Amino acid sequence: MLSGLMSLVVVGSIAFDAVKTPFGERERMLGGSATHFSLAASFFTDVRVVGPVGDDFGEAEYAVLHDRGVNTDDIEHVPGGKTFFWAGEYEWNLNIRHTLDTQLNVFGDFEPKLSEASTQASTLFLANIQPDLQREVRRQCTGAKLAALDSMNYWIETTRDSLLRTIETVDMVLMNDDEVRMLTEQPTLLRGARQLMELGPRVVVVKQGEYGASLFTEESFFSLPAYPLETVIDPTGAGDSFAGGLLGYLDASGSADDEISLRRALTYGSAVASFWVEEFGCERAARLTREEIDARYEAFRQMTSIEGVPAA
Amino acid sequence: MLSGLMSLVVVGSIAFDAVKTPFGERERMLGGSATHFSLAASFFTDVRVVGPVGDDFGEAEYAVLHDRGVNTDDIEHVPGGKTFFWAGEYEWNLNIRHTLDTQLNVFGDFEPKLSEASTQASTLFLANIQPDLQREVRRQCTGAKLAALDSMNYWIETTRDSLLRTIETVDMVLMNDDEVRMLTEQPTLLRGARQLMELGPRVVVVKQGEYGASLFTEESFFSLPAYPLETVIDPTGAGDSFAGGLLGYLDASGSADDEISLRRALTYGSAVASFWVEEFGCERAARLTREEIDARYEAFRQMTSIEGVPAA
Repeated sequence: MLSGLMSLVVVGSIAFDAVKTPFGERERMLGGSATHFSLAASFFTDVRVVGPVGDDFGEAEYAVLHDRGVNTDDIEHVPGGKTFFWAGEYEWNLNIRHTLDTQLNVFGDFEPKLSEASTQASTLFLANIQPDLQREVRRQCTGAKLAALDSMNYWIETTRDSLLRTIETVDMVLMNDDEVRMLTEQPTLLRGARQLMELGPRVVVVKQGEYGASLFTEESFFSLPAYPLETVIDPTGAGDSFAGGLLGYLDASGSADDEISLRRALTYGSAVASFWVEEFGCERAARLTREEIDARYEAFRQMTSIEGVPAA
Repeated sequence: MLSGLMSLVVVGSIAFDAVKTPFGERERMLGGSATHFSLAASFFTDVRVVGPVGDDFGEAEYAVLHDRGVNTDDIEHVPGGKTFFWAGEYEWNLNIRHTLDTQLNVFGDFEPKLSEASTQASTLFLANIQPDLQREVRRQCTGAKLAALDSMNYWIETTRDSLLRTIETVDMVLMNDDEVRMLTEQPTLLRGARQLMELGPRVVVVKQGEYGASLFTEESFFSLPAYPLETVIDPTGAGDSFAGGLLGYLDASGSADDEISLRRALTYGSAVASFWVEEFGCERAARLTREEIDARYEAFRQMTSIEGVPAA
């Protein structure tokens, strides 16, 4: 059981994205893992975002975060620098993404230094950044009762040992299914998740894209399909908004140990992500309400409920 | 509502398979879509199997079917012929399958001719065979209150128009997600399923392999993850055993229209398939019991249940 005032800190990228999908494109929109995560989590708890930006990150961008109540005191403005930039394109069914351009800019020299307030946050999310940096942030964040991390194929391939050591320091791992297989070299997700839990984490959340997500603990398994959408406009940020809803709910609930809370959290994450992909980037966040999220949570319950074995 | 004595007839391949997986291999084992389907459905209702075999199909093979009570009167023995043979190999994570050899043999000239008893079955499953043949069987099967079909990428590519016309004649389509996308050219499964329903079927079941399965009707959506298995020995027959459990339950329930029955049926199909892949081919069927299937049904319920939105 967590206690005291709840707050959540996320460390990750703040970016401008150029994205092309079969349904349109944006030449330059606010993005980055920490941005998507913090906006999504803001529907549940107080959020502080940590990450570097350049001179091109202006009042309009800060306003997107402030309008959702996100605390930006720990955003580091690097004078003369440019904000991280990513360009990508999705294939027709949105399941395959091609990176067209990556400009690290100020992110290349990022050395996270958390404010006192951030080190005392009750929940910490280490978004997908270099695992040495993740471990350093975990070390600084002495107040966190719950720490989770995300990663990606690039770090698994290039900094595998460091990533494994970082996983030892967190309570929860969130990765997509291909990444779990790549990292653990196990043929089934159940075996892969068990192997990750043997390193230390007590919860493994596996993101499965259009198929939904699964949650593994030592004692239990839970799985939820993705919400069936007529049209997905842009999957960018889906995984980070899912993580934001999940950890935002857990931080607010004050309980990350019991099965009911974990299942609710995964369902809230899925609900938030289902809104996210209906528009480009994080554009849906500005109009989204907690009531809409709760209604979709109930839709998830209804679309997965099963009656018991019929009476003989 | 169906009425009268329930029975289910399946038309499809009866085969010998050579299969290699990361966990072992079989040089020659009983297989084929109609075999897997009928054995799976036999846990729920009376099943009749229709398909051709050659001289190499002997008492041992008949015994596997008879031991589960499957009626083999409509198995056509082609004198001097050889039974359909398929050889395949799975990659390490079992999600990718390579066909190494296909010998149609007696299946190449198959012209299904149903016995009077089979034409009066209450439920019909058209397993994955040439769509012209499927439509001919549908025409013969005048007693069927519920008809369903499966298909595959090969028929979508080579006999697309015939497949679409066959879909118009059935109540339910079961396909995997790639096939739905390929056939409908729709980017989301929801749109793909809607397009298939516009052709006539009132239910579309999408098989998603290790991710589970989803069910679409005009009014509703239901999705169920796959059972989390430590080890999958051989996925061969998973889709057909899933269909067998699903349609076997529906035939026995006498009701294929209401949402509760459809969800139960999909859950039973998933439960049966989860046992199937634990051993090679249909080897698990001989030892499987309805009690085991019911217990796994309950496990599915537990691993997908969610509490309501927490009280404010």
